[in-house]
Amino acid sequence: MTRLHVPITLRWSDLDAYGHVNNAEMLRLLEEARIRVFWAVEHDDPDAPATALLAGGVGADTMTLIAGQQIEYLAPVPYLRRPIDVQVWLGRIGGASVEICYEVWSPAGTPDPVLYARASTTLVLVDAATQRPRRLADREREAWSVYLGEPVAFRSRG
Amino acid sequence: MTRLHVPITLRWSDLDAYGHVNNAEMLRLLEEARIRVFWAVEHDDPDAPATALLAGGVGADTMTLIAGQQIEYLAPVPYLRRPIDVQVWLGRIGGASVEICYEVWSPAGTPDPVLYARASTTLVLVDAATQRPRRLADREREAWSVYLGEPVAFRSRG
Amino acid sequence: MTRLHVPITLRWSDLDAYGHVNNAEMLRLLEEARIRVFWAVEHDDPDAPATALLAGGVGADTMTLIAGQQIEYLAPVPYLRRPIDVQVWLGRIGGASVEICYEVWSPAGTPDPVLYARASTTLVLVDAATQRPRRLADREREAWSVYLGEPVAFRSRG
Amino acid sequence: MTRLHVPITLRWSDLDAYGHVNNAEMLRLLEEARIRVFWAVEHDDPDAPATALLAGGVGADTMTLIAGQQIEYLAPVPYLRRPIDVQVWLGRIGGASVEICYEVWSPAGTPDPVLYARASTTLVLVDAATQRPRRLADREREAWSVYLGEPVAFRSRG
Repeated sequence: MTRLHVPITLRWSDLDAYGHVNNAEMLRLLEEARIRVFWAVEHDDPDAPATALLAGGVGADTMTLIAGQQIEYLAPVPYLRRPIDVQVWLGRIGGASVEICYEVWSPAGTPDPVLYARASTTLVLVDAATQRPRRLADREREAWSVYLGEPVAFRSRG
Repeated sequence: MTRLHVPITLRWSDLDAYGHVNNAEMLRLLEEARIRVFWAVEHDDPDAPATALLAGGVGADTMTLIAGQQIEYLAPVPYLRRPIDVQVWLGRIGGASVEICYEVWSPAGTPDPVLYARASTTLVLVDAATQRPRRLADREREAWSVYLGEPVAFRSRG
Repeated sequence: MTRLHVPITLRWSDLDAYGHVNNAEMLRLLEEARIRVFWAVEHDDPDAPATALLAGGVGADTMTLIAGQQIEYLAPVPYLRRPIDVQVWLGRIGGASVEICYEVWSPAGTPDPVLYARASTTLVLVDAATQRPRRLADREREAWSVYLGEPVAFRSRG
Repeated sequence: MTRLHVPITLRWSDLDAYGHVNNAEMLRLLEEARIRVFWAVEHDDPDAPATALLAGGVGADTMTLIAGQQIEYLAPVPYLRRPIDVQVWLGRIGGASVEICYEVWSPAGTPDPVLYARASTTLVLVDAATQRPRRLADREREAWSVYLGEPVAFRSRG
């Protein structure tokens, strides 16, 4: 399986009054990571990545809904100038949904790398016309299986 | 058990390009709800609620760390002028941690109420001096038990 | 002239690492204030205010573009539980644009009120079909003139 | 004079419900640009830029307050994968304040570059101990004058 490494640059405004990246903001960083690697942003996206699995944006045939998310915070994230290393893969490919998995690491090349967080997002594919979940096509399932790996093992709940 | 009802007013900027409250922003709303009811913001907080369980802010003896969060999104949230009804309680009181539970409902008084999301946050109490987890004192445990109820039953993972 | 008083509730996440409402976030609060009083959010807005001057949202005939903004910060804003008092009026009604003016005050009823900031936003009305600026209709000009007052007098640049 | 080019990577969440970078969010991008080039973030900033003029963060001798900002939006900014080109320089070096100027351009190398916005921020230097404005030292004035250029010429108000 292929785990994608997505460099995400923090902003000073990601910090909250405690001086660390805010807990909710962390989910925005994950959102950005999955959009960067898995989404083509239709009409104005000549720079869509080769790893794009979905075409988003207004007018797309398929919408994605986020059904759920889980995250564990292992260490606080300070303001860092070098991009953090968000590692992304799929933990499960279901009938009409996929589970995107993440590990958030200190910047690539850091001597003693720190694992800041692990998380997962369950995405449901929805037909834009009918507004109902739609099954993954075979070619989608095939393309996506490249990124299939072990689901995140969370400490809690089991 | 007592479930607290926290009215949280949306902002138009909570919406993302899909026109619904963004998935990460939803966790900010939960953050605001738990701060409103459970936190006293030290020196400048004459308006601290009677339900305050923790004194936050710079200089506080106890810090809280968020160890993890889980959320399920059941229906998209549009821009609404009347505050949504975030219901908050505790699902578990541990040795040095508590699990805060939430249900996010349409504004109080809505004829057919909609459950938008359910979620939980695991908070760890940390001694500000030693930076290590500290056990809940008996009086804290007693005060908090008023809000103890059933943990959120998530559909996924089990 | 009528100056509208819009109570805006802060969120703890409006603070940045300095522990005060962030400079950019302040413009979000102004955005929310003008939307609350001057916008009707089309199809799902039975709660549109009587003071609504514009119908926004997808499918509206008129779009508004923000041409410019100016703001002066007079005092840092801490986290406050009671809503701040954002006062809103129009400083100028032009051919195809209006200038919205703001003063941001401490919560209504504060014994010694503090003026935190003053600001202005220039809005241009754009025809959604042609994507070009369109002139205000007479009935708009009449309705809006109720809120016309002195433009903000900024200290700088003049 | 030297105009600094700061590549700032957009996030999909910078867009609002209109599908363009939000007006307030634009000021966050400017904030990030000036922090990247002009700030050293004390203890954990081995990556501070050579152009750093100020040491920020908790415990710094000098704080900076933002006294005011002005911005003109010339074209809406879509989601772009390549970083936008935020150009930064100083428009004025005063006794205890500086005016930071910005032009926000389409990504470097774009065939027909688009100027999205121009803006300025007035920063006041404040002595952290006395909480009062403090004059720029001669060596600061000298170091900063490298970046001194023409102030932004705004269309409005003049």
